[in-house]
Amino acid sequence: MWRATVLTLFPEMFPGPLGLSLAGDALSRGVWALEAKQIREQGLGRHRAVDDTPAGGGPGMVMRADVLAAALDAAAPVDDPRPRLLMTPRGRALTQARVREFTEGPGAIILCARFEGVDERIVAARGLEEISIGDYVLSGGEIAALALLDACVRLLPGVMGEEASGVEESFETGLLEYPHYTRPREFEGREIPQILLSGDHAKIAKWRREEALALTKARRPDLLAAPTRSPPRAR
Amino acid sequence: MWRATVLTLFPEMFPGPLGLSLAGDALSRGVWALEAKQIREQGLGRHRAVDDTPAGGGPGMVMRADVLAAALDAAAPVDDPRPRLLMTPRGRALTQARVREFTEGPGAIILCARFEGVDERIVAARGLEEISIGDYVLSGGEIAALALLDACVRLLPGVMGEEASGVEESFETGLLEYPHYTRPREFEGREIPQILLSGDHAKIAKWRREEALALTKARRPDLLAAPTRSPPRAR
Repeated sequence: MWRATVLTLFPEMFPGPLGLSLAGDALSRGVWALEAKQIREQGLGRHRAVDDTPAGGGPGMVMRADVLAAALDAAAPVDDPRPRLLMTPRGRALTQARVREFTEGPGAIILCARFEGVDERIVAARGLEEISIGDYVLSGGEIAALALLDACVRLLPGVMGEEASGVEESFETGLLEYPHYTRPREFEGREIPQILLSGDHAKIAKWRREEALALTKARRPDLLAAPTRSPPRAR
Repeated sequence: MWRATVLTLFPEMFPGPLGLSLAGDALSRGVWALEAKQIREQGLGRHRAVDDTPAGGGPGMVMRADVLAAALDAAAPVDDPRPRLLMTPRGRALTQARVREFTEGPGAIILCARFEGVDERIVAARGLEEISIGDYVLSGGEIAALALLDACVRLLPGVMGEEASGVEESFETGLLEYPHYTRPREFEGREIPQILLSGDHAKIAKWRREEALALTKARRPDLLAAPTRSPPRAR
């Protein structure tokens, strides 16, 4: 069973959308497990403080390294083989290749930051891998964790049907996916491309490859130059 | 009031995590509004079908253009000025600059795809802007919509405190953010960098800029070459 442990100030956000649909079915069938741990349980003093003002000044609050270390240590033993991830816009960009790698392992321990972020020292002290889900800023790591978990869970054996195994999807081939069409044949004066109705499977496959390549060139030329595996990760 | 309308097969996923914390407080104070509409209400026949098999063959199911058009038209009048967004890994990558642009407008209408995706014709027929939150594949557009909405809502006036207005955050300056530190001064033998304890604000600001630049060079050299506004969008 693939096991996810999430450390957060908002455990009630989990499983949230992952409790429904594909991921939710898989969760109730025991294909994967999810536990959300309240970081504040390791907070300091009567108010269970988890943060303090930034050294050197500046706006907002920073999550304390000692509190986060205690939360991580309480959630999983030191020898837990799962990668320890920190969701942050400062991290390396998540890729489908990295998602595949996570699904080949035992699961993930995911730390969700809030406020201005975490004390930098926790990253080295607990060997955290910093991951960004995209070039924008969220109010916390929780929705980033939901995205990462959703991307992983759908690839676990038995979650998607055999047929829809995702091998033709965007990024898996190094390209954005070709366009899809279905009935009706005409919609508001727009026709399904003739070739898709031809029954000639070789021609259809060729057309789809060409469409995928043209779309990728137009929208994401960077993907055509990208390596197919994730780059080495900083420690 | 900034208004979001989400079209989905899983309206119960909303507001989900956006009902709590910053975004949830702002939702209950009326800073923004969210409605989630069930696409299946516009489904066909007794089973309210929303999808059909792909023209030309292949795995999975494709969401029908006519059903999606009806769902979009029922959710918002043709002259609704809000951008109509389709969350899909085939879209242009979401950036913080594009998020800022959305927050300067009246809101967003967001279509969440499931299965293999949508019939391509709906994109041109309803002027959809295709947006990707990152280079990985989710089981549907719902968590992508949550991410986009969270990124937008936190920037709306009155959501974050004045102080934490986000101007020094990752991407806003074109750089990843500098590292943060807070008490305790020593954590497991690791010290807060001396400069941050010096009280010399000019030196601290210079150190932070240098750290942000070094981190960006190491992890995201692409950001140093990127334009500061979002690229033109395909129609």
